[in-house]
Amino acid sequence: MTDKMKHIVLASRPDGAPTAENFRLEEAAVPTPGEGEVLVRVHYMSLDPYMRGRMDDAKSYAAPVPIGGTMEGGSVGEVITSNSPDFKPGDFVFGGFGWATHGVQPAKMLRKVDPAKAPITTSLGVLGMPGFTGWHGLMEYGRPKSGETLVVAAATGPVGSMVGQIAKSLGLRVVGIAGGAEKCATAKEHFGFDECIDHRAYKDAKSLRAALKEACPKGIDIYFENVGGKVLEAVIPMMNPHGRIPICGMIAWYNAGGLGADAAEEALTAPKLWRTILVNFLSVNGFIISNHWGNFPTFVKEIAPKVADGSIAVQEDITEGLENAPQAFMDLLTGGNHGKAIVKVF
Amino acid sequence: MTDKMKHIVLASRPDGAPTAENFRLEEAAVPTPGEGEVLVRVHYMSLDPYMRGRMDDAKSYAAPVPIGGTMEGGSVGEVITSNSPDFKPGDFVFGGFGWATHGVQPAKMLRKVDPAKAPITTSLGVLGMPGFTGWHGLMEYGRPKSGETLVVAAATGPVGSMVGQIAKSLGLRVVGIAGGAEKCATAKEHFGFDECIDHRAYKDAKSLRAALKEACPKGIDIYFENVGGKVLEAVIPMMNPHGRIPICGMIAWYNAGGLGADAAEEALTAPKLWRTILVNFLSVNGFIISNHWGNFPTFVKEIAPKVADGSIAVQEDITEGLENAPQAFMDLLTGGNHGKAIVKVF
Repeated sequence: MTDKMKHIVLASRPDGAPTAENFRLEEAAVPTPGEGEVLVRVHYMSLDPYMRGRMDDAKSYAAPVPIGGTMEGGSVGEVITSNSPDFKPGDFVFGGFGWATHGVQPAKMLRKVDPAKAPITTSLGVLGMPGFTGWHGLMEYGRPKSGETLVVAAATGPVGSMVGQIAKSLGLRVVGIAGGAEKCATAKEHFGFDECIDHRAYKDAKSLRAALKEACPKGIDIYFENVGGKVLEAVIPMMNPHGRIPICGMIAWYNAGGLGADAAEEALTAPKLWRTILVNFLSVNGFIISNHWGNFPTFVKEIAPKVADGSIAVQEDITEGLENAPQAFMDLLTGGNHGKAIVKVF
Repeated sequence: MTDKMKHIVLASRPDGAPTAENFRLEEAAVPTPGEGEVLVRVHYMSLDPYMRGRMDDAKSYAAPVPIGGTMEGGSVGEVITSNSPDFKPGDFVFGGFGWATHGVQPAKMLRKVDPAKAPITTSLGVLGMPGFTGWHGLMEYGRPKSGETLVVAAATGPVGSMVGQIAKSLGLRVVGIAGGAEKCATAKEHFGFDECIDHRAYKDAKSLRAALKEACPKGIDIYFENVGGKVLEAVIPMMNPHGRIPICGMIAWYNAGGLGADAAEEALTAPKLWRTILVNFLSVNGFIISNHWGNFPTFVKEIAPKVADGSIAVQEDITEGLENAPQAFMDLLTGGNHGKAIVKVF
C-alpha cells in the first residue's frame, strides 16, 4: 500500500481577490524519488504575495500554475529518502515543494538548513527569499547612504522589516507604512523604525502624503516599492533628486491583476510619473530575487549572525495545518497577517 | 555712446504651445565685463527642447525664466573683451549667453572652442550638450550590448542621432522613430539606422506598436526616452526582460506642461507601467546632463575624432537672425526642424 500525501491545487482562477473556491485539497500517493532526487516531508511552508500572480493566466516572470496543478511555493522539511550523496535522511532542506505535505526534488534544487544555527522557519523569511529580497534590493538598487530617508510599506512583513532594519543600521531615517495601529507599534518597538504611518487612517493618497511629509521632513531618498497603489501615489511627488526606487512587488494591485480600472484611476498618470522620474533624476529598478541567487551566500554570511544575536528582529505568523493555507493566504493579501506568513504542515 | 545689443525676453508664459506673443525682442546696452569676466559676441545660438520647460512656472530641475527675463540658452561666439588670462579677444567660446547677440560671463563658466578642429556650430550639437546627452545616457544608463535592439525617437535630432550612431557602432540593431518620410530616410541613409518608423503614419500607440514589432522582431532592450507620449506607450509593452530606459526628455508632453489631461488619457496608466517595470526587471533612469559635465572631456576625446573623420554624421538646421529664433523654436517643438536647431546670430 502506497503512502498518501496531501496537496492543495488551483481549482479555478480568481476574479479579483481569491476565494476558498479557487483552492482544493487533494490526496495523492507520496512520490518516489528517482536517481539524484530526494523525498522530503514538509514541516513549514511559506506563504508569499507573489503566489497571487501565479494564479492568473497573465504574462509574468513565471508561468502560471495550471488549473488542477499544485500551488507553488517554498517549504522547509526533513529528508525521508535520498538518492543523492549530498543529503541523508533527517537532514533539513529548503525547496520548492509547493502547497503540499511531501515532495520530491532533484538534490541540486535543494538548500541545506541547519536547525542548530536558527529555527528552521527562518529559512522561509528573514534568512530566506523575503529577507534576501529586502537586503539585495536595498543594497543593490537602493544604494543607501547615512543621513538619507527611506520609506518602505508592509513595514512589518518579512521584506519591509529587513529593509527597514538594514537601513536603520546604516544610519538612515526609516519610515514605515503599515495597516493598523498594532502593526505600526510593532514596526517602531520591535523593528526599530523611526516612524510608522497607518495607511488605513488616510482615505486617499493626498492625505497619506500629508502624513508622510511630517514623518519625512527632508523628503524621501529611497522608496522601497513592495505595494504599489495609494502608497506609491503618495510617495512619488516626495522623492528627492537622485532618489532610488527598487521595485520588488505591488501587492495593492495583485488582486486587480495589476491592471484594474479602479487601480488605474487611483494612480498617478504615467506622464506625471515619467516627468518626476526625469526631473528628479530617479533610478527605478524592477527586480526578482530569483535572478540573484548567486549573492545569497553573502547575504546569509552577513545577516545570519545578526539574526542569531538579535540585532535583526524577527516576527512570524504561523498557521497550523495545510488545510488552512488558503485562508491564511487570503488574509496575507489583505494584510491580515502579523509578520512572515508560514503554515505549519507537520 | 554705449553699444547696443539685442535679446529676446519671455513676454508671457505659454498656455500649451508657445506663440509669437510669448516672446519679445528688446534692445539693451552691451554689458561691460567685470573682473574675471569675458564679453562675447554670439555667432550661433542653440535651440533645444528643454527651453520649453523654462517658460513654465512649474517645479523642474531649473528655475523658470522670469517674465521679462532673457530666454536661456547656450551659444558659441567670439571673445570681444576679456578680463581673464584664460581668454583673449578672437577666441571662440561656448557659454550660456541666452537668446542674445552679446553676453558677459565669468571666464570659469566658458569652454574654449577650436574652430580649426571642427565647425564651431558642432559645439552646440554633436560635440555639445545634445551629443553628450545621447552618448552619456546611452553608455551610463543604456549599457548597450552587441546584438541587442535599441529604439530612439526624434531619430534625426542631435540626441537621437548620436544615440543611434553610437549604438550601431557597438553592434546593436537600431530602430529610429521620426516624424515624416523625409526624416526617416535621413535616419537610415545619413545616420545609418537599420530601420526608421514614421510616427505620423500611425494614429495611435497600438498601431505604432504593430509597426515597431515588425522592426524589432526580438523586442526592445534599450529605449532611449526623449519624447514620451505615444511612442512611450507603444514601446513599454515591448521591452525585453532586463531592458533599460534612460530618460532625458519628453518633448511630446512639454506643451502640455507634462501634466495635461489629454496626455494622461493617451498614456499607459501607472499600474500597467509599474507592473511592466517590475515583471521585466527594467532599469529606468532619469538624468540631466548638467550633473555629468565631469565626463565631458572623455566624450569629446572619444567622439570628436569620429566627427572629424565622418564616421559620426551631422545634420544642422540653421535659421538666420536672432529675430527668427521664436519661430524656429516653435517649429522645433512640433518637429519642423531637420537636424540640430541653430540660429545664426552674427
